[in-house]
Amino acid sequence: MFESAELGHCVDKRDYDREVAKLRARLLDAQMHVVERAEFPVILLSSGADGAGKGDIVNILNEWMDPRHVQVHALGEPTDEDRSRPPMWRFWRRLPPKGKTGVFLGSWYTAPIMDRVYGRVGGSEMTRTLAEVTRFERMLADEGALIVKLWLHLSKKAQKKRFAKLESNPATAWRVTAQDWKDHRRYDRFRQVSERALRDTSTAEAPWTVIEATDARYRNLTVGRTLLDAMTKRLERGKRSATVRAAPPPAAPIDARDVIEELDLSRKLTDAKYDGKLPKLQARLHALAYDKRFRDHACVMVFEGNDAAGKGGAVRRVTQALDARLYDVVPIAAPTEEERAQPYLWRFWRHLPRLGRFAIFDRSWYGRVLVERVEGFAAEPDWTRAYREIVDFEESLVRSGIVVVKLWLAISPEEQLKRFHAREKTPFKRFKITPDDWRNRKKWDAYQRAVCDMVDRTSTEPSPWHLVEANDKKWARVKVLETACEAIERVL
Amino acid sequence: MFESAELGHCVDKRDYDREVAKLRARLLDAQMHVVERAEFPVILLSSGADGAGKGDIVNILNEWMDPRHVQVHALGEPTDEDRSRPPMWRFWRRLPPKGKTGVFLGSWYTAPIMDRVYGRVGGSEMTRTLAEVTRFERMLADEGALIVKLWLHLSKKAQKKRFAKLESNPATAWRVTAQDWKDHRRYDRFRQVSERALRDTSTAEAPWTVIEATDARYRNLTVGRTLLDAMTKRLERGKRSATVRAAPPPAAPIDARDVIEELDLSRKLTDAKYDGKLPKLQARLHALAYDKRFRDHACVMVFEGNDAAGKGGAVRRVTQALDARLYDVVPIAAPTEEERAQPYLWRFWRHLPRLGRFAIFDRSWYGRVLVERVEGFAAEPDWTRAYREIVDFEESLVRSGIVVVKLWLAISPEEQLKRFHAREKTPFKRFKITPDDWRNRKKWDAYQRAVCDMVDRTSTEPSPWHLVEANDKKWARVKVLETACEAIERVL
Repeated sequence: MFESAELGHCVDKRDYDREVAKLRARLLDAQMHVVERAEFPVILLSSGADGAGKGDIVNILNEWMDPRHVQVHALGEPTDEDRSRPPMWRFWRRLPPKGKTGVFLGSWYTAPIMDRVYGRVGGSEMTRTLAEVTRFERMLADEGALIVKLWLHLSKKAQKKRFAKLESNPATAWRVTAQDWKDHRRYDRFRQVSERALRDTSTAEAPWTVIEATDARYRNLTVGRTLLDAMTKRLERGKRSATVRAAPPPAAPIDARDVIEELDLSRKLTDAKYDGKLPKLQARLHALAYDKRFRDHACVMVFEGNDAAGKGGAVRRVTQALDARLYDVVPIAAPTEEERAQPYLWRFWRHLPRLGRFAIFDRSWYGRVLVERVEGFAAEPDWTRAYREIVDFEESLVRSGIVVVKLWLAISPEEQLKRFHAREKTPFKRFKITPDDWRNRKKWDAYQRAVCDMVDRTSTEPSPWHLVEANDKKWARVKVLETACEAIERVL
Repeated sequence: MFESAELGHCVDKRDYDREVAKLRARLLDAQMHVVERAEFPVILLSSGADGAGKGDIVNILNEWMDPRHVQVHALGEPTDEDRSRPPMWRFWRRLPPKGKTGVFLGSWYTAPIMDRVYGRVGGSEMTRTLAEVTRFERMLADEGALIVKLWLHLSKKAQKKRFAKLESNPATAWRVTAQDWKDHRRYDRFRQVSERALRDTSTAEAPWTVIEATDARYRNLTVGRTLLDAMTKRLERGKRSATVRAAPPPAAPIDARDVIEELDLSRKLTDAKYDGKLPKLQARLHALAYDKRFRDHACVMVFEGNDAAGKGGAVRRVTQALDARLYDVVPIAAPTEEERAQPYLWRFWRHLPRLGRFAIFDRSWYGRVLVERVEGFAAEPDWTRAYREIVDFEESLVRSGIVVVKLWLAISPEEQLKRFHAREKTPFKRFKITPDDWRNRKKWDAYQRAVCDMVDRTSTEPSPWHLVEANDKKWARVKVLETACEAIERVL
């Protein structure tokens, strides 16, 4: 993998100056097109061996391009806000919006590679992490992002020489740290692990470019050309990345049996039973939230359901049980402008709870495979790929200790009609019923099919769907609380 | 101040239940109006004595209102991201957008009061901090925010009793900490300091409401009614808070002399001088950025100037001198939807640099008193109050160690015309000239007057304006770099 990057490539100064002059003008021009069209972000990873100039090329690119539209993220140790969330959160929050270029110095590759080099994780753990990274990049590419991954390569000898040279100059000596020499002693291992990482993650949508970094002029010019080439090709393609390969949509069922039809919506609780159970369940949830062991976890609750199924009331029975300091209720409405300039899942990542806390989503990322699918707001390739992306997303939450509780509140069409009419008659609840609700109701069957497909494709062992019979509000509320308590108890 | 809150107010259970039923319906109704109109945020501070139930009332309000539109911020110790920015940053980033209610448990009053109680600051320092807080709240109110400040009062005896009661129950004993008892021993001092703080900060636009908290039912009902009353009155007033009192606009000058006219725009540098000075200044700036002492500081550079004055080129001469990891260039364009739902200065606060870093603003918060004033995008009361708000803003930056370097790049109308024509002829620069530029040019005199007023009103000793003669780009760039170096050297 590194063979072509150890040939001793170099460029003489005159050629360099001439080429750079041309390159700068073209780079700036391409950047201005990216900025003006604002159709996709450019994500550039500057990775490679220590001493290869990962930081230098960022400076060079910032000089060649318009720095007003470049965001540089030099990620060292995670902050305490980063650490109390899933590992990918720190990258999600720093993704560039459409039109901008985000340069990452230290990326989602740093930890997997260095953890493996120092033996903190085994080979299979690294494989798993890299598979996750590959799917993350696939998602970014499917969302339109241009991903340019640069690997600056130095041979062991060249690295040693570089460090020695930096150390010999008092102005640059501080740049070589004890850790750098420690890493250098593990060079062979580093090379082996990186080679494997690059091999596993060089995909059609986000290939690695390995660049020999011994000669700074050769390195800079190659970096600039690689980026220019990638931007130019991407601009030619227009809005959508060419790599989107649509998964086939779920096949239609051949009989009328489905998971929703199987529900027994006649289930109910008497007032007496409800009044007995509710306070006990709320006390149980309250105690769980204050359990010391919960401080290493968090809870994401997802409320979905038919219109008028009683999501709001169920949410309130949960929040009543919790200290207001410990939860956020996140109502999902139309995305804001800043959210629309980001990948679909970005607006959910930004609301993830810190450790020890609850985030309660009133509607959620499932909008894509429900309303957006049925109403045609999302193109078919977008909602079909969403199943996989959502499974990945929730898996990464679960892996970092977050309990994901997904609830579908189901009512019958007859019960819905009754509630719509009741809402229209109560002045106090009138704001809760809109023309959209009536329109959605006409598409009952299409929604029901979308719900069944959603359950089939996203109910996983670590984050299963819980279908809640909600014709009786008391039954539904008790089941919601029970489900949440059991889910949390399972991890403590 | 606390007399009325020590009368032993209480409400019996039957009255409470009856009143609460009415109150809840009205509170929810008022909240829905606030949400739907989305014209102003509601900012509620829950403050007061330990044990008075500051957290309990937040839970109650969240139960009475729709928790989907309430954001609760229980602020304990600042995170490390908070700590590397000015103290008010953690509050700015959590301000609720228009239509939402933000509840602060632990607010901008906590530190000033507790620091004084424990003698960490003197009385005059507290006065200064509270004056700053008052101006902050005044700004929020002028931006339309409804501010409800609740002070839950307990007498010393009642506090002791409350702690003892909580401790006697194993389920609540953990809520009383050693710190609580420590604070209790300082009750008299706490009362004295709080009384003073409340007195100093009870303003027309953000008055304190002191509530006796011995009886929980009396407390809850009073809190609910206070909030309801405030929301109702605010809703009646419509979009704008009634408290905006316009400052008079600056008077027109009586002769043609002004700070811009006094500039000698013929100043220039030869190529040789420029080539000699530039690299030295860039090296000097580079060294300053890496100076260990700079880690306790940060630098905010503000580039303003006539159209085509060469801001972009000057910015690039600065960024060339810096490691791309150490700076962000923040181009100021039209505010996004999320920014428009916040006070004017919010979109600048969010880009403040961490300690040790640079933020370079290409245009800035001065837009309000320049383009927004001249083009009439901001109403007169809004741009006239902006002078004061900007001075406060910059003062709070300087106080936390940030070096503020404000540069006005001035060119003559003739030079501007030459550059406009040149830009139109260079394909590469054509995107830099828009119909807006030509339109602005016609208002040259109005802009010039706005610039002079801006300099007069916002050039302060801790953050002065630097007027840069920019007809000669070389002169301007050298002066920009010199100014930045000198400003940083002054604080190190």
